[in-house]
Amino acid sequence: MIIVMSEGATEQQIEAIKQRLTKEGLQLHLSQGVEKTIIGVIGDKSRISASTLEAQPGVEKVMPVLQPYKLAGRSFRHENTVIRIGDVEIGGDELQVFAGPCAVESWDQLLESAQAVKAAGAKILRGGAFKPRTSPYAFQGLEEQGLKLLAQAREETGLLICTEVMDTRSIEVIAEYSDILQVGTRNMQNFHLLRELSRVNRPILLKRGLSATIEEWLMAAEYIMAGGNYNVILCERGIRTFETQTRNTLDLSAIPIIKSLSHLPIIVDPSHGTGKRHLVRPMSMASVAAGADGIMVEVHPNPAEALCDGPQSLRPEEFVSLMDDLRRVAGVMGRTA
Amino acid sequence: MIIVMSEGATEQQIEAIKQRLTKEGLQLHLSQGVEKTIIGVIGDKSRISASTLEAQPGVEKVMPVLQPYKLAGRSFRHENTVIRIGDVEIGGDELQVFAGPCAVESWDQLLESAQAVKAAGAKILRGGAFKPRTSPYAFQGLEEQGLKLLAQAREETGLLICTEVMDTRSIEVIAEYSDILQVGTRNMQNFHLLRELSRVNRPILLKRGLSATIEEWLMAAEYIMAGGNYNVILCERGIRTFETQTRNTLDLSAIPIIKSLSHLPIIVDPSHGTGKRHLVRPMSMASVAAGADGIMVEVHPNPAEALCDGPQSLRPEEFVSLMDDLRRVAGVMGRTA
Amino acid sequence: MIIVMSEGATEQQIEAIKQRLTKEGLQLHLSQGVEKTIIGVIGDKSRISASTLEAQPGVEKVMPVLQPYKLAGRSFRHENTVIRIGDVEIGGDELQVFAGPCAVESWDQLLESAQAVKAAGAKILRGGAFKPRTSPYAFQGLEEQGLKLLAQAREETGLLICTEVMDTRSIEVIAEYSDILQVGTRNMQNFHLLRELSRVNRPILLKRGLSATIEEWLMAAEYIMAGGNYNVILCERGIRTFETQTRNTLDLSAIPIIKSLSHLPIIVDPSHGTGKRHLVRPMSMASVAAGADGIMVEVHPNPAEALCDGPQSLRPEEFVSLMDDLRRVAGVMGRTA
Amino acid sequence: MIIVMSEGATEQQIEAIKQRLTKEGLQLHLSQGVEKTIIGVIGDKSRISASTLEAQPGVEKVMPVLQPYKLAGRSFRHENTVIRIGDVEIGGDELQVFAGPCAVESWDQLLESAQAVKAAGAKILRGGAFKPRTSPYAFQGLEEQGLKLLAQAREETGLLICTEVMDTRSIEVIAEYSDILQVGTRNMQNFHLLRELSRVNRPILLKRGLSATIEEWLMAAEYIMAGGNYNVILCERGIRTFETQTRNTLDLSAIPIIKSLSHLPIIVDPSHGTGKRHLVRPMSMASVAAGADGIMVEVHPNPAEALCDGPQSLRPEEFVSLMDDLRRVAGVMGRTA
Repeated sequence: MIIVMSEGATEQQIEAIKQRLTKEGLQLHLSQGVEKTIIGVIGDKSRISASTLEAQPGVEKVMPVLQPYKLAGRSFRHENTVIRIGDVEIGGDELQVFAGPCAVESWDQLLESAQAVKAAGAKILRGGAFKPRTSPYAFQGLEEQGLKLLAQAREETGLLICTEVMDTRSIEVIAEYSDILQVGTRNMQNFHLLRELSRVNRPILLKRGLSATIEEWLMAAEYIMAGGNYNVILCERGIRTFETQTRNTLDLSAIPIIKSLSHLPIIVDPSHGTGKRHLVRPMSMASVAAGADGIMVEVHPNPAEALCDGPQSLRPEEFVSLMDDLRRVAGVMGRTA
Repeated sequence: MIIVMSEGATEQQIEAIKQRLTKEGLQLHLSQGVEKTIIGVIGDKSRISASTLEAQPGVEKVMPVLQPYKLAGRSFRHENTVIRIGDVEIGGDELQVFAGPCAVESWDQLLESAQAVKAAGAKILRGGAFKPRTSPYAFQGLEEQGLKLLAQAREETGLLICTEVMDTRSIEVIAEYSDILQVGTRNMQNFHLLRELSRVNRPILLKRGLSATIEEWLMAAEYIMAGGNYNVILCERGIRTFETQTRNTLDLSAIPIIKSLSHLPIIVDPSHGTGKRHLVRPMSMASVAAGADGIMVEVHPNPAEALCDGPQSLRPEEFVSLMDDLRRVAGVMGRTA
Repeated sequence: MIIVMSEGATEQQIEAIKQRLTKEGLQLHLSQGVEKTIIGVIGDKSRISASTLEAQPGVEKVMPVLQPYKLAGRSFRHENTVIRIGDVEIGGDELQVFAGPCAVESWDQLLESAQAVKAAGAKILRGGAFKPRTSPYAFQGLEEQGLKLLAQAREETGLLICTEVMDTRSIEVIAEYSDILQVGTRNMQNFHLLRELSRVNRPILLKRGLSATIEEWLMAAEYIMAGGNYNVILCERGIRTFETQTRNTLDLSAIPIIKSLSHLPIIVDPSHGTGKRHLVRPMSMASVAAGADGIMVEVHPNPAEALCDGPQSLRPEEFVSLMDDLRRVAGVMGRTA
Repeated sequence: MIIVMSEGATEQQIEAIKQRLTKEGLQLHLSQGVEKTIIGVIGDKSRISASTLEAQPGVEKVMPVLQPYKLAGRSFRHENTVIRIGDVEIGGDELQVFAGPCAVESWDQLLESAQAVKAAGAKILRGGAFKPRTSPYAFQGLEEQGLKLLAQAREETGLLICTEVMDTRSIEVIAEYSDILQVGTRNMQNFHLLRELSRVNRPILLKRGLSATIEEWLMAAEYIMAGGNYNVILCERGIRTFETQTRNTLDLSAIPIIKSLSHLPIIVDPSHGTGKRHLVRPMSMASVAAGADGIMVEVHPNPAEALCDGPQSLRPEEFVSLMDDLRRVAGVMGRTA
């Protein structure tokens, strides 16, 4: 941690900071420039926070040097985390594709989707039973009934199930029916939810918040890991910017950055990241070329009748063609799909 | 709703849209330009969503004309909503100042804060018992013990209490101890929480999400109102931008915009909106001059020892001076404080 | 300057950095933590740039401690800069209001505007002769003919003239006709233009770039000052964010931040900052309450016929009423208007 | 164009709009909903601007339906534009790689860079002679001397030259020495510059502005095309967002969007788009996989001694390896490199 004293800081103020740090058992180095004094702090910084130091008289700002996450960081674990569910590996050589409808609407719709997903060669079925919707008047999902349909689709097809959890009170029932629990973009900093998920025996797919920095995202993963659940899959799904041609701006540089800062697997959701069907293919290709461990894609047997996200959902035949393309880029990357 | 057909849309595609709309009992007007066809739709649009229409073949985009919120809008209620708790009015002629520490830390700290708040003339004590923190390793609040201290401070001073609720499971206990329930910026789109709060007999202070548009913010208020709780206070607290001099960018134009779109009261939190103590006074003044119904300010007896948000908390004497300044601007605005 | 070495940095890499700095005559302090080494650098940093250091092997990042601007900073000049043109002072006790049409359209339109501006008590007439337009097919201004009309309006009314310069080749002619030269938001980092303006004997109104940080804005002022022109007036006019209700998001916290970092005067343009007529009054009031030295407002005798910016232009009678309101807030701030 | 009247619009106001449009020879369709009236306008909208209509009493907003660009749009030209310079094609099957140092520093540095670029198989040498720098105290380029070195490097290696033009006054001299003229991100809306470039007999590389929407970017291309220069190459180089891990956020979805809206070629600059050397390779790969027509990359024989952009410049051997990787992705995309 580096403390930058303000230009007008007095000797007494500098002395007070020094005493405070020393009292906490921290070592310090003073650099006295012509205009400003800088104090480098060494030791276990958990004993005093940057915010507390910044509130001391005479302090201009405090600059952290170490990353605030521990378990999620590369220095905690040098090799990549590979999450295994049955014979499916996420974060390994094989790309994993999560595909399926935005929302579970009916048994027929779900089964048709699941069969298309399976036929194209993907192994994980996505589908929402609890749906976060901007409007209270929009379709909110089939809830528990939707979970049952998902479990039934798993039995029918052998696909793994990934579905969203929005509230601490429904964690238990969702964990019962689903293989992977998804935390949506709006809940990335729902800290009570994250804390409860840290005690669940299921991998968590953690979507990046709409306006979350990469550091905040890794800190959200840290919440889940701090409670003992190390199986976190990160999912980039676009951030909010001024551009209006896309629903969000997909930040693909997040992929190599996460790969360098963290050992956790990262996938990309180009459906929500762009909001437009014709952008899903190129952005999926780009994600894999940038090093993503997989893709999450919305597929619907009949997008024109979808209860949500129709404009960004692929038709089954488009999905088959996408899977073929992905396999070719995967080859270049030394991976399979 | 206006449907813009893409340039290459066929007659059949246009016809299909027309039939679909007519089947739903909607009236439509066709404008056939040289390059594009536009369809204006009149009637109860809840029968078919913009997203569904956008997913139809040949449709380029759908542009909504009406506001998606109903209860939160000015056309639902022309006069301003004034929320009354005892003899305190929020949204009336008197500005209301919510003040107190970021977090409840101890009885002494809270009592001292509360007495300072009261002495300066404010009527509502803010203080967090459950704290949303970016790091799982940071102080998370005194939880229920903090609520009890808040209730005790109310008894001691007569101030109203406003505290944050983060999880559906703690609504009941917080509602028991607190006069106003606060939804924080990270939970603005925690829809299960909003839905539960729509059934609580307490006013809700709804902070704007870090990257929420004004429309999304009003839709979050709509969630609370749709369930029957019409007592929603909006709170602007800064949005996320590229500027790094401030913690967030306070969007004061939100004040007159909310006043024109909605009947709900709006206050401003310049402490979180800027993150810096020396910006709190000018931005509080500006908020009142822009038409805000009040201010939420962090006050701590000793910011240098605060467990959170020390750098942006005012000292009691600074708060007294702020209240004096606010009264003078309030005067210009034809209000009291 | 602080150099943070990466975790895996070798002794040789640290040694190489030390030698390089010492060779440049810079003093350094080494703090060796368990995980990382930090080097504090003292001396004249102009001899080696942060970017060069960041490119050295083993360096993770370089964090500047001192502000990059010199002449524009408060430490260069502690008292406020007051710019005097005739008997008009910008940055002094009196608020200055720059008002007039977006573009000079005709002599009648300009004269009517100027008379309205003068009658309401403002002292500076704004009006564009060269207009930056997003579309090449839109009205681009009357160019030199517009400048002549502005000069004529000055003669008729005694108002000072402020008009925009877009190209190095037209500086001379604009300086001949105008009292204050405006650099628009799109040209804030047009460095050749800034450099030429540093040699002009006229105050420069420097608008903040659409996505410029406050530091970049002050560096643009530094370009003008570095060449000898110390008369720079900063103008906040809104930054680009995700919010679509306003044309831009007016960042009023920039006012007290500029006041603390710099000695230069700062005004606010709520017309471009919001893009909507009904937001101009509240945001003007807020600007003054936040400490601005003045306001720039679009006024047009007949906004419905304006060739540009009609939707955000005030009618003469609205402007009179705004000036009255501003005088009342100015009074609270201990200023006149 | 669609005009949405405000809820309280009177019959007279609607009538006035109708008369105004009819007078301009425009056809209109009225849709009278319960709450609002909508007017669809058909005909040559260049006769009356959206902004003028928005300024009329009773108008809430005006929504354009047609794209504002003409020459830059796909409907003007259905097949892709391929720009030919000698035997180099930009926008054709072969990917083009623009590579070289940020700034021309000396003959040795430039020659070494050029030889490395050529040896690796790229055909276009980039290098700045006039440098836009945030600080007036930073190295501003060798100016005309730099241009001469570039021309000499072309003679030596046969590479095409691409260099930046910052000011109307230097267009002529740069066009004399350079094959492609680059407009930098800060000048994307320097309209006088764009207009002059529309009369130059050289292809223009137009970088996207730091906070430019895709529509504004195409309008800037339109400025160049409107004057007769149809050879515009678009270059995505990152937009400004809140994320601080990267210098900018590379918006790769811009590639397929540009491909659908426009016929112009588009390349990507991952060096400026990320600001970090280790992100250049993955983001280059992703750009090609998303459909880019080429890449612009900073290469320096000794990044640790570079006068600018050292931290994001590739070493020659890294560039060779990148070219190999690009060829493999190009193969998957049915292209060569």
